[in-house]
Amino acid sequence: MPAHRFALATGTALHEGVLVIGGEEARHAARVKRIEPGEGVEVLNGEGAVATGRVTGVEKSRDEWRVRVEVERVSRVEPVRPSVVVCAPAPKGDRLAQMIDGLCQAGAAAWHPMRAARSVVEPRAAKIDRLVRVAEEASKQCGRAWTLRIESALDFAGALRLPGTKVIAHAGAGPPSAIAADAIALLIGPEGGWTPQELAAAAAAGAVATSFGPHVMRVETAAVVACGVMLAR
Amino acid sequence: MPAHRFALATGTALHEGVLVIGGEEARHAARVKRIEPGEGVEVLNGEGAVATGRVTGVEKSRDEWRVRVEVERVSRVEPVRPSVVVCAPAPKGDRLAQMIDGLCQAGAAAWHPMRAARSVVEPRAAKIDRLVRVAEEASKQCGRAWTLRIESALDFAGALRLPGTKVIAHAGAGPPSAIAADAIALLIGPEGGWTPQELAAAAAAGAVATSFGPHVMRVETAAVVACGVMLAR
Repeated sequence: MPAHRFALATGTALHEGVLVIGGEEARHAARVKRIEPGEGVEVLNGEGAVATGRVTGVEKSRDEWRVRVEVERVSRVEPVRPSVVVCAPAPKGDRLAQMIDGLCQAGAAAWHPMRAARSVVEPRAAKIDRLVRVAEEASKQCGRAWTLRIESALDFAGALRLPGTKVIAHAGAGPPSAIAADAIALLIGPEGGWTPQELAAAAAAGAVATSFGPHVMRVETAAVVACGVMLAR
Repeated sequence: MPAHRFALATGTALHEGVLVIGGEEARHAARVKRIEPGEGVEVLNGEGAVATGRVTGVEKSRDEWRVRVEVERVSRVEPVRPSVVVCAPAPKGDRLAQMIDGLCQAGAAAWHPMRAARSVVEPRAAKIDRLVRVAEEASKQCGRAWTLRIESALDFAGALRLPGTKVIAHAGAGPPSAIAADAIALLIGPEGGWTPQELAAAAAAGAVATSFGPHVMRVETAAVVACGVMLAR
């Protein structure tokens, strides 16, 4: 692991040569991590580009810190396969950020907030913005070359129309079966469970009903465990 | 699911007939859940006995609430197989309780706090007592007939001597293989990872090194995901 890792705004172009990093990432590196010239660093753009290089300068001009990096090499990293796109209702309070953090670590590609018949919380736009930052920070912490994407809200029918193999978590179903798919949409139910109508619609759409454990799990735990199980197969 | 679920002290004998519940469980049911005579309830003893019955009285005598239940049936539930005993260092702060809560939901049988060469936090006795309560509450929430056991602290060599198949989580290893075992001891490393000496000792003891995902996970996430993956196989 490099001495320090920077995460730039998603999609920032990275190339060899001089890179000047500003904003909060620079301030944090300079003031909190006390980064110094000569240290080896890694720079991520959240879309598969990973630059390695060395710090050549740390300076403050006016109110902003700037870290100057000499980029020695830029590599492209492929996204994790299969891509697991998690559709789950937003759990209440801190458990939403906890779920996003866990999904980053477990290797999910994206999360769609999903409205199911029995789901209750609908995250507001301000909360969604905060989640993007949670996803960026957690993705950086675990060294993901691709940041977990926070996607638009979907209703249940919309989740069933996503590309790839649909897997619907359901306590009454059988254990996970081997799925050879490049893309998986993983549907996690709300606290109150699925309605019979939702289970029937999922079956009609060819979704594979799967149980991910012996006990009832809360949404944020079920989402992370199910993602881990699908990626381990 | 019953209208209400009571968790008695672990191992309390349960039999048909009248059962009087006191203490915090009775107070919570009476004051917070406003349970009333006639409601169907479930009573767990944390060691496989599950009683179902009906409330026949809710009363307060002196300072204590009492809930009277007519137990109609007591069933014995077998523990989850394979039993997954998780050995993991205690993560810092709230993340420890979060891990215990997640392990309850995922279906682990027990947790041993484990000292590894690079682990830092050693939970104090007071904290361990609190964890027992976290495990009891979380086990009740997800309807476990067997409460997650909080076991004694072990060093790494002690973890390798536990019964059953040893599985050691290691980012550099291969994906999970099918393990036909009735008991699994799952070793999760500290934030700084295993030392080469620990990995060599694990291999010499026949432990199966396994990677549980594409990214680095924090201890509390790795423990829960790895437990879920082992139970899903």
